[in-house]
Amino acid sequence: MTDLLLTDAAEVVTYADHERFERTEDAAVAVDDGRVVAVGPTAAVTDDYPESDADAVVDCAGRAVVPGFVDPHTHALFAGDRSDEFEAKLRGQTYQEILEAGGGILRTVEAVRAASTDELVANLRDELDVMLAHGTTTAEVKSGYGLDAETELRMLDAIDRAAAEHPVRVVPTFMGAHAVPTGRDADDYVEEVVTEQIPAVAEQGVAAFCDVFCEEGVFDVAQSRRVLEAGIEHGLTPKVHAEELSHLGGTQLAAEVGAASADHLLHATDEDVDALVAADVTPVLLPGTAFGLGAAYADAEAFLDRGAPLALATDLNPNCYSQSMPFAMTLGCVEMGLTPAQALGAATANAARAVDRPDAGRLEPGSPADLAVLDAPSHVHLSYNFGVNPVDTVVVGGEVAHE
Amino acid sequence: MTDLLLTDAAEVVTYADHERFERTEDAAVAVDDGRVVAVGPTAAVTDDYPESDADAVVDCAGRAVVPGFVDPHTHALFAGDRSDEFEAKLRGQTYQEILEAGGGILRTVEAVRAASTDELVANLRDELDVMLAHGTTTAEVKSGYGLDAETELRMLDAIDRAAAEHPVRVVPTFMGAHAVPTGRDADDYVEEVVTEQIPAVAEQGVAAFCDVFCEEGVFDVAQSRRVLEAGIEHGLTPKVHAEELSHLGGTQLAAEVGAASADHLLHATDEDVDALVAADVTPVLLPGTAFGLGAAYADAEAFLDRGAPLALATDLNPNCYSQSMPFAMTLGCVEMGLTPAQALGAATANAARAVDRPDAGRLEPGSPADLAVLDAPSHVHLSYNFGVNPVDTVVVGGEVAHE
Ligand SMILES: [Zn+2]
Ligand SMILES: [Zn+2]
Repeated sequence: MTDLLLTDAAEVVTYADHERFERTEDAAVAVDDGRVVAVGPTAAVTDDYPESDADAVVDCAGRAVVPGFVDPHTHALFAGDRSDEFEAKLRGQTYQEILEAGGGILRTVEAVRAASTDELVANLRDELDVMLAHGTTTAEVKSGYGLDAETELRMLDAIDRAAAEHPVRVVPTFMGAHAVPTGRDADDYVEEVVTEQIPAVAEQGVAAFCDVFCEEGVFDVAQSRRVLEAGIEHGLTPKVHAEELSHLGGTQLAAEVGAASADHLLHATDEDVDALVAADVTPVLLPGTAFGLGAAYADAEAFLDRGAPLALATDLNPNCYSQSMPFAMTLGCVEMGLTPAQALGAATANAARAVDRPDAGRLEPGSPADLAVLDAPSHVHLSYNFGVNPVDTVVVGGEVAHE
Repeated sequence: MTDLLLTDAAEVVTYADHERFERTEDAAVAVDDGRVVAVGPTAAVTDDYPESDADAVVDCAGRAVVPGFVDPHTHALFAGDRSDEFEAKLRGQTYQEILEAGGGILRTVEAVRAASTDELVANLRDELDVMLAHGTTTAEVKSGYGLDAETELRMLDAIDRAAAEHPVRVVPTFMGAHAVPTGRDADDYVEEVVTEQIPAVAEQGVAAFCDVFCEEGVFDVAQSRRVLEAGIEHGLTPKVHAEELSHLGGTQLAAEVGAASADHLLHATDEDVDALVAADVTPVLLPGTAFGLGAAYADAEAFLDRGAPLALATDLNPNCYSQSMPFAMTLGCVEMGLTPAQALGAATANAARAVDRPDAGRLEPGSPADLAVLDAPSHVHLSYNFGVNPVDTVVVGGEVAHE
């Protein structure tokens, strides 16, 4: 018996990263017990796994099948509505004016602190629904809008609860060091993160990663190092928001502490890129952030030229409100010069590296049966058909999770 | 009795254009016989049109209701797949190399000529489905991939047939003068358009507008004028693809012949804009074209500063493959500096002017009940929540056409 059989796909992309791209035309995928058991030409696959023995068959004629997307950098859990800040910016208000009017990240912190955990769970569920509909089957979600031990833990609890009832595989990241809370000194707050928050998070076992915003005016390299090293001591793998608005040294720090990823990287130098590659740290670029703010894009070519396993993410947050990995891929192509195949690799196998899920983002015998059936004949349409959702059916662990 | 009642909407935008923006909070819309009969605060509307007397009630709590979008410039009817050209460009091929390899518009012409009319109807239906799901309730669709009398008429026939069976209200435009067919002289082909194609189109009554690509290397101003004047003689209102790649004079021509719209306008001068305003020609900007090609955007501010009724369109075509008016609005905001309200006006009342449907794109007593219920509390989310579809339910003529 086979749990699920997808047949006659126009193409199946089985694997894509910065070095390999493998696809089969007129292809089938057989799934048993939540995992891919066979993938290849339809005739060959159905020889071993006949349609008559399958619990469910999806005819994919004229449609492409790709690995489910891995979104390796999101702040998908938040509360409140900051669309008015988007509007205010377009009406000519400066960032400083918006901050002075009570806008920005600390407004989201207030809204999250005021929200019940049930509300937080419901908010995240809504975001995960939209992400799933756009083909995301694994998503990292960060805390970091609590900025105190109680609310950070409530956020991680909400992530845990939303994940438990949702098909998307959620990777939780603790990010108490996302900003300095109002009225606090950065060193003083880092002390709290290191001595109070991280031990509590570790004790509850509710996060896999520990992230920090290493940026001028937020946390400097020494403070960031303290946070990440405390995380490592407590079993949390480091991640770094690095060189987003200035060149501070977060990338070198990521390499030194063996981070899973360094993210943003707009001001990374060639030496930074070499250090990431040498230390096997995955660079994660977030083109939606640049798009939403009308700002500059990171230099993707610098990473590809050095053989770095470039990953893409949505950066979903109130300041970059997009749940769509296909749109991140479109931006990767149109604004950063990636090919559609490179963009797909950056959204699948490379993105999986950034969240230490090496078996995600691929369709090979043994890998989880997480995939997207497109309403289009090839993966190129993921980038080509822009501003809409080219994803039709989404399968997670062999179950149809969205159609 | 009321056919349809929408209640408790977070906001209803009743009208938006370049001068006015009208919205009501906690609002309701009552519909009878396909038209809006009342719109205003829920309490007031339901006093006159109680829920108990309505055939159907849609609870819009937490959601915004906006006029259905009018997409005033599309080449939504085509055949073939040119995603490989998108990929080739990203791999570094030049436009010239793609043309030499048989790519570009004439490849679509070949595919359309080779397609049966039934195939063309099915292709357009698929595009209209996606447009409708993104809130478009009125769409212009051009011919122009036939470039001979027989195929141009077949395209217009396919548009007519697809429209007859689809909820989207389709405005058909004849555009025999879209390109010079392979091996033909431009003057010679204009002669055919004027003496053969236009009279046949007019006789069959299958188009409302006549459009021309006035551009260096395509049709010059004199040729364009000949086409548009022949159209006028046969009852077809002019439209002009003007100043897209160079400044040739198409905008002034549009003003002189009293066109409904002049479209693209990247190289329009201040004098051009003044001429459009004086002649009451609607400027239609197509930001998706710039986005897809990584090219420059038109100067929206120059139009707004002069009080021009700026409209936005998708330009849906194989070279700009996006069916989403919300995405055109996002680009209008993020890349052109429109406010969300201006972008909505450009996608509704102003766009309706560009296709001579003055009662479309608004929600006032007497106007057609064409509207979109958003999965969001305000129209701002149409631009703010980018790369995804913020539209939930779509109503055309008082009937739920998509949900
Ligand atoms: Zn972030
Ligand atoms: Zn056009």
